[in-house]
Amino acid sequence: MKSAILTIGDEIVAGFSVDTNSVWLAQELLKRGISVVAKKSVGDDLEAILEVLKEWDGRFDLVISTGGLGPTHDDVTKTAFCRYFDSELMFDEDYWNALVERFRKRGYEIPANNRSQAEIPIKAVTFPNPVGSALGLKFSSQSTSFYVLPGVPREMKAIMTEHLLPELGSGEAVSIVTLRTTGIIESALAEKLKPVASELEGVLIAYLPAYTGVDLRLRGLQTGQRGKEQVEAAAAMIEAKLGELVYGRDDDKLEAVVGQLLKERQETLAIAESCSGGLTSSRITDIPGSSDYMLGAVVAYSNESKIAILKVKSETLERNGAVSEPTAKEMAEGVRSVFNAHWGIATTGISGPSGGTSEKPVGLVYLAVAGPQRTVAKEANLVPHRLPHKAATAQAALNLLRLEMLHGS
Amino acid sequence: MKSAILTIGDEIVAGFSVDTNSVWLAQELLKRGISVVAKKSVGDDLEAILEVLKEWDGRFDLVISTGGLGPTHDDVTKTAFCRYFDSELMFDEDYWNALVERFRKRGYEIPANNRSQAEIPIKAVTFPNPVGSALGLKFSSQSTSFYVLPGVPREMKAIMTEHLLPELGSGEAVSIVTLRTTGIIESALAEKLKPVASELEGVLIAYLPAYTGVDLRLRGLQTGQRGKEQVEAAAAMIEAKLGELVYGRDDDKLEAVVGQLLKERQETLAIAESCSGGLTSSRITDIPGSSDYMLGAVVAYSNESKIAILKVKSETLERNGAVSEPTAKEMAEGVRSVFNAHWGIATTGISGPSGGTSEKPVGLVYLAVAGPQRTVAKEANLVPHRLPHKAATAQAALNLLRLEMLHGS
Repeated sequence: MKSAILTIGDEIVAGFSVDTNSVWLAQELLKRGISVVAKKSVGDDLEAILEVLKEWDGRFDLVISTGGLGPTHDDVTKTAFCRYFDSELMFDEDYWNALVERFRKRGYEIPANNRSQAEIPIKAVTFPNPVGSALGLKFSSQSTSFYVLPGVPREMKAIMTEHLLPELGSGEAVSIVTLRTTGIIESALAEKLKPVASELEGVLIAYLPAYTGVDLRLRGLQTGQRGKEQVEAAAAMIEAKLGELVYGRDDDKLEAVVGQLLKERQETLAIAESCSGGLTSSRITDIPGSSDYMLGAVVAYSNESKIAILKVKSETLERNGAVSEPTAKEMAEGVRSVFNAHWGIATTGISGPSGGTSEKPVGLVYLAVAGPQRTVAKEANLVPHRLPHKAATAQAALNLLRLEMLHGS
Repeated sequence: MKSAILTIGDEIVAGFSVDTNSVWLAQELLKRGISVVAKKSVGDDLEAILEVLKEWDGRFDLVISTGGLGPTHDDVTKTAFCRYFDSELMFDEDYWNALVERFRKRGYEIPANNRSQAEIPIKAVTFPNPVGSALGLKFSSQSTSFYVLPGVPREMKAIMTEHLLPELGSGEAVSIVTLRTTGIIESALAEKLKPVASELEGVLIAYLPAYTGVDLRLRGLQTGQRGKEQVEAAAAMIEAKLGELVYGRDDDKLEAVVGQLLKERQETLAIAESCSGGLTSSRITDIPGSSDYMLGAVVAYSNESKIAILKVKSETLERNGAVSEPTAKEMAEGVRSVFNAHWGIATTGISGPSGGTSEKPVGLVYLAVAGPQRTVAKEANLVPHRLPHKAATAQAALNLLRLEMLHGS
């Protein structure tokens, strides 16, 4: 089964907008054994779209288009497909009423513009959009199925996941496993894996570094069951070699891994943040159900708030400074006590661009975890640029908590 | 001047990795009047890279390649360019020592792998990488300049910005202005602008909706001075029409706009967050220098912490619930008082997926701002999905603060 992806939008062609849709689609199709053999982008241009439809009809089994289904005048995708398939539009009163009601619930009067989204091509099958107002459409020719989807990634993905992926047959799938590591840099990881590299038969490894850690993507060279077994064997061997450097697989997030540990142990968490500024707390609360274990956080940017709210001793601050191991430990213990939580974690560092000295340079950070048995701290020199430093700090703090929950008590 | 972009990497071709580099490059070049007329992606494949070099040499004035300069064995970009330009490699002892020192400062011993990054092609000009270890390279043929850059976006951008963009001549530039709006949906915005749409001569408008607001991108159809004047006139007309719905231009961020207002007034801020979970605070602290006005934040997920730390009255919670206007107001006033700040802002809502009722559905949120003169609150029904709801809540809270600073006192 061969497929092609068409992304439609002036913004994409001119280089203003990043095409993440085709990446996601290619991966999801690959998992089901469908390879994407062509990708094209065209503007919101009736003739250009028609040309691609002519070119691809009959050449591929499956064509997926994204974009150009919005309510504004520059969106012409539906018109192009109707013209190609010689289909009329029918105004769907029920769908219009549903849209009116959906807007009303959100406190808006529906703009007249949106009426076009209730105009349904009579030759298309429609798919509900659980998170937006543009319906998904399917047109079929003799030998090609055309899926027509909105360009907003969340809407495209929701329609694909709920309606289209289930109806796409699964051929001989390619196996892919991603191992997620943190606390080690790419080149050190590569050295650690040198001894086993020769034993990873039939598997291609890619190193994907980020400020929060390095992902290892293992892809089977063979499809089907054989490839799956080889990838699984390779993943198990690498996990055994790396131990706790690996915190999860595939889409696992460190904040979810930590949350799961807390949930299993029926324990609670409170967070004290200085340099990470609320990011650690925001990541923990990204996880649905986190209110079961997350009690709260204090972002204590000023020394006064470290003393008044977190009960850090003023002598500690005077003697060691705000960016120090003793301060980090007292912040973690303080927030644990203020919220009456099982675990308290703390970050204090210098994210920059200013505030660094030769003794305490930009990038320096202290992390601490206070638990039922003990308090531990860690010094780290992370990337000395503000936003990556915040990201790396939050990750290191969550990882210290994970390791402490696994070992400390 | 014609240019082309080559992105190199197995990950990009297979659809595993999103190509943001070519988007950024196309925009930066366009601003300088250099149009990108070809874009291609190839894997980490010596022969494939050589083929593109042969094809493009002489055809374009400028070729920019990104990717494939890392320390691992699968990175072959440098080898390909050396082969094409028949250039030897020279080991740069000084650069190696600088790398060793850089790693040492971060607390790592440099892995042997990294030695390859100190091997410099003798026929290339090198450009320092301020944020990573792979140098930028420039090879020149009779009529084409090839810039060879790392694939990590921050590194590529740093080298471009500090070294290459300044040396690229500026031809007849295309003018682009983005107006950033929040608090109004795309279709309502389009209706508001209908009356002026016909007067926007020579300017193309694109609507770019996100959960945090809609950007309006204005692009001049003519290059040079004439286009610049037309875009400027259109931007001024639309700003006048939309008033305070526009919070900034181009890359302006709402958290920076709010920060600038606080700085000018020499006032301070404290934040109380429930449903937004620390995201509002994290955004404020993303801005360099925010410690001048940001005192801190409390993420009060539990009712107990709303009472104990923020001094919300337990009767208020009992009578109205945690998600209510009175609670939001007391949270804002409480955090303002705890941190002794000029301004306090608060969020309390239901981000989902659970916790909604028919009376208080998922998506409902109350925002409040307590200032020197008064406390105001606002009810909103935002997108009922957890992460977008958090994002939209933080944005709405910051916007309420902006409006209140402009008007309230």
